[in-house]
Amino acid sequence: MTSPQPVTELFWAYWKTKTMLSAIELGVFTELAKEPLRGDELAGRLGLGPGAVGDFLDALVALDLLDRTGDVYANTPAADEYLDAGKPATYLGDSYLTQCAGLADDLTGVLRTGEALRGARTGRDFYADTYATSNSVRAFQRDMTALSIGSARVIADSFPWDDYRSLADIGTSEGALPGRILLRHPHLTAVGFDLPQAREGFEEYTGALDLADRMSFQPGDFFRDELPSADVLVFGHILHNWGLEEKRLLLDKAYRALPEGGAVLIYETLIDGDRRSNAVGLILSLMMHLEVPGGFDYTGPECQEWLREAGFRETRVEHLDGPESMIIGFK
Amino acid sequence: MTSPQPVTELFWAYWKTKTMLSAIELGVFTELAKEPLRGDELAGRLGLGPGAVGDFLDALVALDLLDRTGDVYANTPAADEYLDAGKPATYLGDSYLTQCAGLADDLTGVLRTGEALRGARTGRDFYADTYATSNSVRAFQRDMTALSIGSARVIADSFPWDDYRSLADIGTSEGALPGRILLRHPHLTAVGFDLPQAREGFEEYTGALDLADRMSFQPGDFFRDELPSADVLVFGHILHNWGLEEKRLLLDKAYRALPEGGAVLIYETLIDGDRRSNAVGLILSLMMHLEVPGGFDYTGPECQEWLREAGFRETRVEHLDGPESMIIGFK
Repeated sequence: MTSPQPVTELFWAYWKTKTMLSAIELGVFTELAKEPLRGDELAGRLGLGPGAVGDFLDALVALDLLDRTGDVYANTPAADEYLDAGKPATYLGDSYLTQCAGLADDLTGVLRTGEALRGARTGRDFYADTYATSNSVRAFQRDMTALSIGSARVIADSFPWDDYRSLADIGTSEGALPGRILLRHPHLTAVGFDLPQAREGFEEYTGALDLADRMSFQPGDFFRDELPSADVLVFGHILHNWGLEEKRLLLDKAYRALPEGGAVLIYETLIDGDRRSNAVGLILSLMMHLEVPGGFDYTGPECQEWLREAGFRETRVEHLDGPESMIIGFK
Repeated sequence: MTSPQPVTELFWAYWKTKTMLSAIELGVFTELAKEPLRGDELAGRLGLGPGAVGDFLDALVALDLLDRTGDVYANTPAADEYLDAGKPATYLGDSYLTQCAGLADDLTGVLRTGEALRGARTGRDFYADTYATSNSVRAFQRDMTALSIGSARVIADSFPWDDYRSLADIGTSEGALPGRILLRHPHLTAVGFDLPQAREGFEEYTGALDLADRMSFQPGDFFRDELPSADVLVFGHILHNWGLEEKRLLLDKAYRALPEGGAVLIYETLIDGDRRSNAVGLILSLMMHLEVPGGFDYTGPECQEWLREAGFRETRVEHLDGPESMIIGFK
């Protein structure tokens, strides 16, 4: 199996343009050309809502448009010369905004108001809407497979699956991850856990892989119900949808559901520890602000701390593919 | 002066996404998964119009989605596994098209019909429309400065300006290029040549640089009128707007207008000689198909041949900055 990186990188490319355009439109570079500022000062001057500003500014750092020293942001030389409206002989911003009219409107709106799109007030609202019709849940499931398949491929190879006999994938969607792992490891069985509306897509996808005898769907709500029991519990792009309190609650539940010697495996478009290089991780976190109120992506060290507090005795972070990494916690 | 590359690269990023999306939507990868095909065969099967197909497919080569051997195109391994609709377990195309709905509609439409957008039937129609109102000509001029300023900076440094006393910039727009060169070389004078509607923008821009005593605007139509006389004639992102016959006509006119010992300097987002690495050059050529009927970008060797046929005794190609290069012809 080949890495999807050449393809996913081209998908993310337009989000990089969008992030720059929003910053131009909001006047980030024009304001910072006057003087470097802390994030909260800049947000105050530009009238930005709370929530997404930190990820937004750090994404601009990762895109080499801003420098960050301590908690103070400044333009990089190229941004200062070409994206400051106060320098009309070299300012490219008007031209870019006109040529890309509308491209970044959603992101710019979220940054201005601090509120998610589509009126969702909580993450649960978002999922209630998304899972409301068969079409919308199937489309969402295809998106989740697209987001996960690159990591699934590496996790199937690099995790010590020989030490375990079963896994449960929490928020499994179509089951792309356990499917990929079971194809590679014939000794394993897997449960895919998700809201009942995900069953149809799961059974269609995993049925096509001819894995129905080793893989089953377990319907449930991971806030209302206990998690399934298995040697390894997997959360793939799940924790980032939720606020800190809910993230911790899910990790507590995982700890309770695991046997001694079990492991939790969390994979995400993890933000680098310094929050200055993984542009896609920071942009995906921005997208969470757009879609799911309270959601945010995080760094490896942050997640390791939550795992230790949930009781896990040992944790480690490993890079997977492209912008994706996993954190493992051993009980 | 700093390179605008970090900024312009982010601008072009969304065009890379668009190019991939159009290829997904048109079924390029699904068709090539069945068997490798020549460009004309593929265009026939997909029902694509003539004109832009070669640039489109070569841009996909430069984006690492296709391989080209001789004149036969095949999917790269990543495109074959993730962008072939015949492989539903790993196909990411539906998800990408849904998430980016509308992003590539203009490009996909042009590829299907082979006709430029906005009803322009010739390059002259395009310019007549663009120069029709003060607002549209000013916006266009800002775009042209955005496209040229990175090259202007390097040309000011790397061309042997000490050997010459005057330049004329043909299709000068705001005059960003001669402005940048004159700021660096106080012995030079410059003429900016463009349609009369460009005068206002030119005088505003170059006036702000405090160069009015060494720089003047000369109104004219480079097809109807003779070109101004100067030691160096510059064509920046001009030739690519026109068909082959018009390109040659302009180079013939340049040869006639130059003194013995004079030079023509052409800078473009030049396509690499193999047409397989400068994605932005190939994409800009695609954009020409979108905007200006008959226009296309080209490689250094192609332009050197046109220059030799126009009578220039010596030619050379030099890289400038990012995706931009220049071709120089000496009379």
